[in-house]
Amino acid sequence: MAQTMIAGVDLGGTAIKAALLTMEGDILRKTQVPTPVTEGADRVIGRMMETIDQLLAEEGQQRSSLAGIGIGVPGPVDEATGSVHEAVNLYWKSVPLKQKLEQLSGLSISVDNDANTAALGEMWRGAGQGAKDMVAITLGTGVGGGVIANGRIIHGVRGVGGEIGHVTVVPAGGPLCNCGRTGCLETFASATAIIREGTQVAAEGKSETLAAVLEQNGALTAKDVFDAAKAGDAAAVKVVDDAAYYLGLGLSHLANILNPGKIVIGGGVAAAGDFLFERVREEFRRYTFSHAAESCEIVPAILGNDAGVIGAAWLVHEQQIGK
Amino acid sequence: MAQTMIAGVDLGGTAIKAALLTMEGDILRKTQVPTPVTEGADRVIGRMMETIDQLLAEEGQQRSSLAGIGIGVPGPVDEATGSVHEAVNLYWKSVPLKQKLEQLSGLSISVDNDANTAALGEMWRGAGQGAKDMVAITLGTGVGGGVIANGRIIHGVRGVGGEIGHVTVVPAGGPLCNCGRTGCLETFASATAIIREGTQVAAEGKSETLAAVLEQNGALTAKDVFDAAKAGDAAAVKVVDDAAYYLGLGLSHLANILNPGKIVIGGGVAAAGDFLFERVREEFRRYTFSHAAESCEIVPAILGNDAGVIGAAWLVHEQQIGK
Repeated sequence: MAQTMIAGVDLGGTAIKAALLTMEGDILRKTQVPTPVTEGADRVIGRMMETIDQLLAEEGQQRSSLAGIGIGVPGPVDEATGSVHEAVNLYWKSVPLKQKLEQLSGLSISVDNDANTAALGEMWRGAGQGAKDMVAITLGTGVGGGVIANGRIIHGVRGVGGEIGHVTVVPAGGPLCNCGRTGCLETFASATAIIREGTQVAAEGKSETLAAVLEQNGALTAKDVFDAAKAGDAAAVKVVDDAAYYLGLGLSHLANILNPGKIVIGGGVAAAGDFLFERVREEFRRYTFSHAAESCEIVPAILGNDAGVIGAAWLVHEQQIGK
Repeated sequence: MAQTMIAGVDLGGTAIKAALLTMEGDILRKTQVPTPVTEGADRVIGRMMETIDQLLAEEGQQRSSLAGIGIGVPGPVDEATGSVHEAVNLYWKSVPLKQKLEQLSGLSISVDNDANTAALGEMWRGAGQGAKDMVAITLGTGVGGGVIANGRIIHGVRGVGGEIGHVTVVPAGGPLCNCGRTGCLETFASATAIIREGTQVAAEGKSETLAAVLEQNGALTAKDVFDAAKAGDAAAVKVVDDAAYYLGLGLSHLANILNPGKIVIGGGVAAAGDFLFERVREEFRRYTFSHAAESCEIVPAILGNDAGVIGAAWLVHEQQIGK
């Protein structure tokens, strides 16, 4: 039977998102099931395969219709073997995912880090529109990234290419980062950072708006801070300006080094839209070599939660076109 | 006749360096002739071909022995067409170098920017030792760079990938850069910058050693500053420490984004050796994500002036192995 489909999986600590896609990356059918994290790696891998089999059955197809399965995992992956070095949210350490799933499925398996698969999804079918040189940034609890040059993900020698969240934007001082250093972009431009700064100005009595929301809800969200800023709250505007400054500076490093045609920004914070993007673009232009600035668009991600499964499917597609 | 050789050319504003190399990048014979810059692009291209023909004659070989000619040029190149956008030192603008030399030679021609060919030379036969993920930096009048990921140069969408000299290391203030902005790495870590700072401390009476050299020679060199620092002159040590700080910070951005296995540093300033390198490594470790820092060696370039012709030959070699 002709192989006419790809299975894409976005494996997270909470959910297994799985989809069947055409060879060109159109989603035919998708689903998501809870990740049985506490039951161990083999059970998680088994559940992944059951989910794909279920999707196939619903499509009236068999495993033999699949050109392969692509998977994005929340942790660094050994590029050569498809083994997961560590995935904290899954409690995994050194899990030979590719090998195990190959044995289980009899199919060709491709594995990469989920920040990279999200970037590849946006490259293939999202805001990247096929750009061969682009970067995708996710602004969430942290700041993650996937770097694509010459159409391929940059993994680097130890799989930590694209650690944009840990680019130093404040050389001396700055909040402590989870990585153990200080001054990382992640500590200034993530949702966590915006909430921290918003809570700070509320506590210091600099923002009545945020103080009221904090009083009412017991905690702030990044959206609260953006909403206050959009409504003209000066202290909240300052929080957004600061985040945009650090983000623009960090992105300038990417652009001066890589000269990407697009920087695609996704994640919860990006939902703030042009109010944030315009500020980031302005700071970015200030710090970027003119030719690199002129040739780079900073745009919102468009695939949302589907980026992961589409990018995972790209891993299989890439192998096919490489044949 | 079997194609057993490659011609590599490093085209500069002062000299045309040309070499015949084996298919594996060993230099068989090399020479250099003045670049007839004032006589126009066609004459420069003709002189290049004559120089290669001369080398072939000396080896008792014909053009048909060549698998191709690779050329590094001092300016941005259109990757697709091999046309030189602009080369200020040659007074060139939009010169279709690949096309012209193909017509003149009847051979396959490959062209890239000279910072990139120098990087490829170090990758292939120099300090990179075949590393597929590495960066080469040249500290000279400016700070140039070539970035290699997955074994390929990152050109970016407008050929300005690797503009490491224009990474912003001081966001507010700092000396004016030739690019029109301020705070670029180049304005702190180039020979020009070290001379400027050394001259400044001499003029301010902070360094008797440098003041004496300045008095005697009328101007300082970067080597003068390093020599004074090595001899214990506190103000000169401060100049070196500052340059190392900015360099370490700039290189950390490269490593956090690319996770290269090697950063190879060449050019006049790099001649200062471990006195400089140890300081740069220390600053680099301070600002780099631990996994990226641990997996990256910062080492001196070893090919010197030959890096250009060897890297230019790599362009031809790469096309051959790609066939």
